[in-house]
Amino acid sequence: MEQDLRPGLYAAIFRRRDIRRFRPDAVPDAILGRVLLAAHHAPSVGFTQPWSFVIVRDLERRREVKRAFEQEREKNAALFSGARREQFLSFKLEGILEAPLNLIVTCEAGRFGAAVLGKPGVEQVELYSTCLAVQNLWLAARAEGLGVGWVSIMSNDALRSIFSIPPEVLPVAYLCVGYAERFSPRPTLQEAGWAPRLALEQLLRFEFWGAPSEDRARALARLARDADTWREIFPHGGMPEF
Amino acid sequence: MEQDLRPGLYAAIFRRRDIRRFRPDAVPDAILGRVLLAAHHAPSVGFTQPWSFVIVRDLERRREVKRAFEQEREKNAALFSGARREQFLSFKLEGILEAPLNLIVTCEAGRFGAAVLGKPGVEQVELYSTCLAVQNLWLAARAEGLGVGWVSIMSNDALRSIFSIPPEVLPVAYLCVGYAERFSPRPTLQEAGWAPRLALEQLLRFEFWGAPSEDRARALARLARDADTWREIFPHGGMPEF
Repeated sequence: MEQDLRPGLYAAIFRRRDIRRFRPDAVPDAILGRVLLAAHHAPSVGFTQPWSFVIVRDLERRREVKRAFEQEREKNAALFSGARREQFLSFKLEGILEAPLNLIVTCEAGRFGAAVLGKPGVEQVELYSTCLAVQNLWLAARAEGLGVGWVSIMSNDALRSIFSIPPEVLPVAYLCVGYAERFSPRPTLQEAGWAPRLALEQLLRFEFWGAPSEDRARALARLARDADTWREIFPHGGMPEF
Repeated sequence: MEQDLRPGLYAAIFRRRDIRRFRPDAVPDAILGRVLLAAHHAPSVGFTQPWSFVIVRDLERRREVKRAFEQEREKNAALFSGARREQFLSFKLEGILEAPLNLIVTCEAGRFGAAVLGKPGVEQVELYSTCLAVQNLWLAARAEGLGVGWVSIMSNDALRSIFSIPPEVLPVAYLCVGYAERFSPRPTLQEAGWAPRLALEQLLRFEFWGAPSEDRARALARLARDADTWREIFPHGGMPEF
């Protein structure tokens, strides 16, 4: 019987946050190494392992990234008006310069040529694989006490230019990494009232899309959140907030 | 001081496999609920939570999916020739009918309208978020002793037709879920010699893409795999194979 993986795994999942405020402490190489190895052990279509990791500490390049972010943020702000726009502008959405470390996770779809096991049906499968690697990285970081913030307000053209990324390589995630000031009990945008957590039952369908089976969805969602369902995993309390 | 999340989290990451052989035992609803809740707590751009989960047990629909898979598999086989083609055809690549449960994870990008915090810079950010949810689901399943197999040899048109999925909803992942017969020490395609595990040092770059900094990459990759790096997390052995 192997050890119970569930408390650590679920706690990492439920306590992971998108972090924008970092302590300045450096990330030791051994810990960075563990986190990167965890990312590298994500699933990938046809075992193509299409990802690479660019480790960025250079402040001059990060200042350029910050300028690119600010331009994109202007565009993003233009989507909102009134109080919502003001709220948008009040959010701290990145820690590019404060984090001790930035990471770019890229995807190189043609790394092994065009013949890929699992490729022809669904497009962009390598891109999917790369996202799975990002989530491994994010969770490993959380388990190490490290915060990760994904700066999705970003221009890929700017990243290509600043970091000399060639056309065949797609920058997928620009991440700020470092020890978190804190992990809030709930996601920032939820706490701020920007958007609500959707109820699980709204997201469940049975056998086909059609009309949701409301009774079944409600029953399964209620069971998923029930304290009894989680007590065997967190018998001494410390259950994450859902 | 919170509990040490690392042993459970890292073991789930390194021992997760793409599973194609399942025991017939049903997945209890409480466990399915935990796994789905873990998926729902993935990060999402602008807290949009663009995913839905279609829970499929109906055998007639699964037989249709299996036929769609077989057609796509023919197309995929045509990419290979000779011994490689024979090896491709020898692989078991799905457990659509044997698994007690199939799951479709979908992405609905416009769920909250076009104005999304974090949207304008990078395209497809909701799709990225949905992939992160799939990885949460996959790891939670692994921690529960459940295997997940992603059938990427699949036609989205067929899925739309079989499950009445509307145009604005993208089927991202078709997953077979059930108790695994076994979790092999290494990924199937690696064990079969289909493709090698890439060395971590090949995937690391420093400060910019340019030429890899081979010495730094080698040093960091060596540290990442070093037994000393992992001993504090797995002091009693049981370290996963990298």
